[in-house]
Amino acid sequence: MQWEHILATRTSRMKASEIRELLKLLAHPEIISFAGGIPDPDLFPAKELENAYSDILSSNERESALQYSVSEGYQPLREWIVTKMAGLGIPCDIDNIIITSGSQQALDYLGKLLLSPNDTALVGWPTYLGALGAFNAYEPNYDKLEPHTNRSAQHYADTAKVKGGQVKFAYMSVDFANPTGNTLNISERERVLDLADTLNCAVIEDAAYQTLRFDGETIPPILALEIARKGSIEKARTIYCGSFSKTLAPGLRVGWVCAAKPVISQLVLIKQASDLHTPTINQMVIYKIAKSIFYDHVDKIRGTYAARRDRMLQALADHMPDSVRWTKPEGGMFIWLTLPEHLDGAELLTKSLETQKVAFVPGAAFFADGSGRNSLRLSFSLADAATIDEGIKRLGLLLKSV
Amino acid sequence: MQWEHILATRTSRMKASEIRELLKLLAHPEIISFAGGIPDPDLFPAKELENAYSDILSSNERESALQYSVSEGYQPLREWIVTKMAGLGIPCDIDNIIITSGSQQALDYLGKLLLSPNDTALVGWPTYLGALGAFNAYEPNYDKLEPHTNRSAQHYADTAKVKGGQVKFAYMSVDFANPTGNTLNISERERVLDLADTLNCAVIEDAAYQTLRFDGETIPPILALEIARKGSIEKARTIYCGSFSKTLAPGLRVGWVCAAKPVISQLVLIKQASDLHTPTINQMVIYKIAKSIFYDHVDKIRGTYAARRDRMLQALADHMPDSVRWTKPEGGMFIWLTLPEHLDGAELLTKSLETQKVAFVPGAAFFADGSGRNSLRLSFSLADAATIDEGIKRLGLLLKSV
Repeated sequence: MQWEHILATRTSRMKASEIRELLKLLAHPEIISFAGGIPDPDLFPAKELENAYSDILSSNERESALQYSVSEGYQPLREWIVTKMAGLGIPCDIDNIIITSGSQQALDYLGKLLLSPNDTALVGWPTYLGALGAFNAYEPNYDKLEPHTNRSAQHYADTAKVKGGQVKFAYMSVDFANPTGNTLNISERERVLDLADTLNCAVIEDAAYQTLRFDGETIPPILALEIARKGSIEKARTIYCGSFSKTLAPGLRVGWVCAAKPVISQLVLIKQASDLHTPTINQMVIYKIAKSIFYDHVDKIRGTYAARRDRMLQALADHMPDSVRWTKPEGGMFIWLTLPEHLDGAELLTKSLETQKVAFVPGAAFFADGSGRNSLRLSFSLADAATIDEGIKRLGLLLKSV
Repeated sequence: MQWEHILATRTSRMKASEIRELLKLLAHPEIISFAGGIPDPDLFPAKELENAYSDILSSNERESALQYSVSEGYQPLREWIVTKMAGLGIPCDIDNIIITSGSQQALDYLGKLLLSPNDTALVGWPTYLGALGAFNAYEPNYDKLEPHTNRSAQHYADTAKVKGGQVKFAYMSVDFANPTGNTLNISERERVLDLADTLNCAVIEDAAYQTLRFDGETIPPILALEIARKGSIEKARTIYCGSFSKTLAPGLRVGWVCAAKPVISQLVLIKQASDLHTPTINQMVIYKIAKSIFYDHVDKIRGTYAARRDRMLQALADHMPDSVRWTKPEGGMFIWLTLPEHLDGAELLTKSLETQKVAFVPGAAFFADGSGRNSLRLSFSLADAATIDEGIKRLGLLLKSV
């Protein structure tokens, strides 16, 4: 059976994530890996999760926990999220919330909702690799979102039209972004809104790391800024995507979208047709944990990750040659290195694995056009202090030798 | 914000499921509902599930249960499924299996994999409503799959071409189908294979109810018949979709696809980009339960559902007027009624809720072209004997009065 001739055209846009392929190589215990970017499992609230599953399955909630449930998600969890969003300056109600299987699923659904083939998505150069993966299935073009520059809305619109569609949304990870660790400041957020208002397109605000701020001042979400401008979430074009993966545990796959009701009701239809609902029991467990320990737990893990970030920044200062620059994230899990222009992150990785046994993610994968080869992503989320010191020292040796 | 102008064209095909809207009306305790078609929660292995969650979360499996995991699925569960498939006459290995979030997600992914807009999907008239929902997002045309007739492959191909695409697959629920309760016999299965071989298209075999056979002889899956013809799953065009929802519990959202490796590896890419993976902990729990009690548990629930089917068939014989015909399923959860041509299932439902307080699903929703109005679906999965007797008696009164 030859499958090529019956695959949908969109499959030509689907390819394996470089990071994923890379991670398969990193099982060797002698390799120091800053590649992953996953939460530290020692920080999962394992005992509380065990108790929550047990409490639910030994109570009269058992039947509903194991049964089919509504596509919108578990009502008490949606209510808890409403309160959380209010605390972020986003007044909304339960019909503004849908539960998704992680925020990755939210990105897939938003591509499905908004992108016809040849439409344009504005994304950062670089941006979250998983967002490109999700959107690719809907065959868009990408244009470079540059809130720092004076590029006009008309220019974005014209470029999209030439490519056979229209600008449907601007996507960005706003706080301590994956991969750069950068945070959009308030005026950049306002400029994204101005641009979207002029283009009459949506804004997808990926807030997966929002809660993991270690220091510096909290910046209101784009959705909060837009509600402050326009008076109501129903008038907002911003679609906020949240996740419990970085704060509680990713293996349960629970995230959410907060947006105007017409968006949520369309996403409910999409969810109903694509997987019916996020596992009922996991939603109930996340609710139980969130209600009792969310903010205390996040305080605790922030301290651990902040110490690792500090250690990695210090090690970079101690060991990197002068030609290398890096970001100083106020939260999250990532630091982004910019190398001299003649260096290629992918080639460097090959050398690094051979000679230094240190892994990272080459930067080009995060660029929709494959540029950015002289960059790389480091994650500090999983490594202890000694490992960070040793790994960055080795990486510095390598970079001084090339 | 007006959203219409930025929605993808595919959204015009997305609409709320009639069944879902209906179920919202059925919360009233005085209504006897044969509408749902969900498993009886009293039959969930709740104690075993509670123990499995607890065992995993109190052991050294805890960290991996709560962490991100690979898109293919949990390896021991895939291995268990390999053994199950071998028992069905489908020799395969672990790379022929991907875990999905229920078989509904498999249908979504297969639409994404195979359907470009205007391609044709062959489906039964009627067919599973959730399959139409999943495929609709990929903007196909539907043509009527009729393994009983002599309609030629060329005619299917020509019709698809006129509509601007090609026949990509034939989809069918093969055993005690939702909604009809009918089972394809072996010669019908062989004819579907002949047709697909001539059309050079895929076959999607939805086996969600396969394990729930109460009596009659087991019929080999289409995939088994094809492997018997061609010698290997790698030469097969049939894609088998299985589910634990009807046998263990739907709230965990665990199903699988078994197919040739090129299909599975594409589905892995789709899963990676759409929700990363099915919740790790739920896969581990399903594995633990499946390994220890699957076949014993299925034996138990079969007995319960078989008694309900028998009771409903007897009640139909006792109370229906001569003008009504119905199917006699050998398993599953559904019986399909065909009414005199002048009757409309939707109108009948309105009357039934008003005068008899009995709910069912009108048949037209299951037809891709909206025909089949003089039919309705009854589920026997949730009702006890007295409720079945009373509900069918009332429905008979209604049908004798119209």
